[in-house]
Amino acid sequence: MSKVRREHGAGGELMESLIKEELLPNLTMRGEGSVTLDDLDDGATFPSVDGEMVMTTDAHIVDPPFFPGGNVGKLAAAGTANDLAVMGAKPVAFACSIVVREGFPIDDLKRVYRSIDGVLSELGAHLITGDTKVGNTGDVDIVVTMTGVGEIVELVRDCGLRPGDKIVITGTVGDHGMAILAAQQGLDTDLESDVAPVWEAVNAALEVGGVTSMKDPTRGGLAGALNEMAEKSGVRIVIEEERIPIREEVRVLSEMLGVNPLEVANEGKVVMGVRPDMVDDVLDAIRSTEVGKNAEVIGVVEEGTPRVEMETEVGGRRIVEKPVGDPVPRVC
Amino acid sequence: MSKVRREHGAGGELMESLIKEELLPNLTMRGEGSVTLDDLDDGATFPSVDGEMVMTTDAHIVDPPFFPGGNVGKLAAAGTANDLAVMGAKPVAFACSIVVREGFPIDDLKRVYRSIDGVLSELGAHLITGDTKVGNTGDVDIVVTMTGVGEIVELVRDCGLRPGDKIVITGTVGDHGMAILAAQQGLDTDLESDVAPVWEAVNAALEVGGVTSMKDPTRGGLAGALNEMAEKSGVRIVIEEERIPIREEVRVLSEMLGVNPLEVANEGKVVMGVRPDMVDDVLDAIRSTEVGKNAEVIGVVEEGTPRVEMETEVGGRRIVEKPVGDPVPRVC
Repeated sequence: MSKVRREHGAGGELMESLIKEELLPNLTMRGEGSVTLDDLDDGATFPSVDGEMVMTTDAHIVDPPFFPGGNVGKLAAAGTANDLAVMGAKPVAFACSIVVREGFPIDDLKRVYRSIDGVLSELGAHLITGDTKVGNTGDVDIVVTMTGVGEIVELVRDCGLRPGDKIVITGTVGDHGMAILAAQQGLDTDLESDVAPVWEAVNAALEVGGVTSMKDPTRGGLAGALNEMAEKSGVRIVIEEERIPIREEVRVLSEMLGVNPLEVANEGKVVMGVRPDMVDDVLDAIRSTEVGKNAEVIGVVEEGTPRVEMETEVGGRRIVEKPVGDPVPRVC
Repeated sequence: MSKVRREHGAGGELMESLIKEELLPNLTMRGEGSVTLDDLDDGATFPSVDGEMVMTTDAHIVDPPFFPGGNVGKLAAAGTANDLAVMGAKPVAFACSIVVREGFPIDDLKRVYRSIDGVLSELGAHLITGDTKVGNTGDVDIVVTMTGVGEIVELVRDCGLRPGDKIVITGTVGDHGMAILAAQQGLDTDLESDVAPVWEAVNAALEVGGVTSMKDPTRGGLAGALNEMAEKSGVRIVIEEERIPIREEVRVLSEMLGVNPLEVANEGKVVMGVRPDMVDDVLDAIRSTEVGKNAEVIGVVEEGTPRVEMETEVGGRRIVEKPVGDPVPRVC
């Protein structure tokens, strides 16, 4: 099986042939502007609008790079698209920079590109430019840094919660983090990462209106995202434990491993604040999409010291702390 | 001296305080749109125009990360800005994703951020969003992946050379690659990397007009860039050896180490094709800028099999091959 060699990273003909012959053919969404990925120029063009657009970037590293439900390529494309989505921006164009360790199988690299392409196809967005380098990156097999630009449909911030807003989560919580944790521990489960682009659900909600705030609960999980939204908005969030959708497998695994499912990453979910008079319609709209079919209203926004409280199933109320770190063992 | 710890990378409060208290204060160009770097939201906004804009991305890794004349931060900011510049686009907004190894000194990380900021200040461009992760990245101390978007002043490609065009280089050749090589070999020289943003020189040339093609001769050096331009444009380039500006230190070092200065990277230079009737004015305009003061006309474009030929100082003609790889030992 052919592997990435050090010489591939030297920027000469070897890398050029690797990119042209082995990697590019796995991509179908290669741009539609004056200069596309096919031109292999110093950059490429994307359609822009008069006013403002949104940009976001993230280095995606995951151990293992292939996991139940996806791989680092799908994670990178969906993750970056979702950061645009929660700002209320439709993903338009992406730039992808990959650093891969010497010896990484070229077939695996192709799978990463195909997964990126799958997400872009679903979104109707394009990968217009990129960069691939080879290095001695130690414990890290592959870093996929994905940058995206998006067209603003309606600019939504993570600081816009107002007292009275309802808190909506677009689906089950903890799937990605627990799937990775299970894979790292070598446990045999049916659990898959939820990694997926959320734009369809976000767009459905924005079309209804009344969305005051959004965030994707990735690292730090739902607990982290809610705390950040409460802090930035200057409000208290009260959630009801029994309303939080959690898969049975996630619940069992989290008890077995002593990990709080509210603190692990989700990669295909959005938490939103929605005006109370609009929340039923917004919920219906989100549920009508595949990625949002398990959406639930899980809480409400109140005036008060910024923090997150949870009404527990047994009737008490406790503070949901901001996680100090991610409980999932990481290479990065 | 405080160092980056694994826990900094876990996405919780530790990373948040590292970013807010230690890193952000080193940046002054933090955006000027509705959402800026200060908001630490999921992304940020940049001013866009009706039509098309240019995007480019590059993962920058260099050993050593601090070298005579610059560091990996300056390299990343200038390198990405220069990829926009050679497309004829004025750099507007940047997204920066850093992966740093555990144990990297935080003071060094601050220096990297300050160097990025220095380049952006010179350009009047902004770093609007970013991501910082910590990992066991082996031989690689730090990866700075910089993505930039730019406003098109005049879209220029690397494939636009026409027979009769003159070939212009905006300054001395081989400075960056030879400075890195000298640093890696522990040699004591006065040579510094040429790493710098080239937009001022490019803009001066575009204002005159007649620029048919541009490329920045980074990895693969001048030899690589010229070969790519010849191939893509379907023309022959003939350069005159004695006209190529090369510093005496670079010449001496390249003979000592047996490395061709035309094959090593430049990080503050542009090679252009210019219409013959405009070349004098373009050269004057480029030379009026600090970064372009040593610009020279080094050759001409002819019809013929796409390749690069060099008229040597002793009177012969030889083919300038496309480098197979970069002769500078790399970690990546």
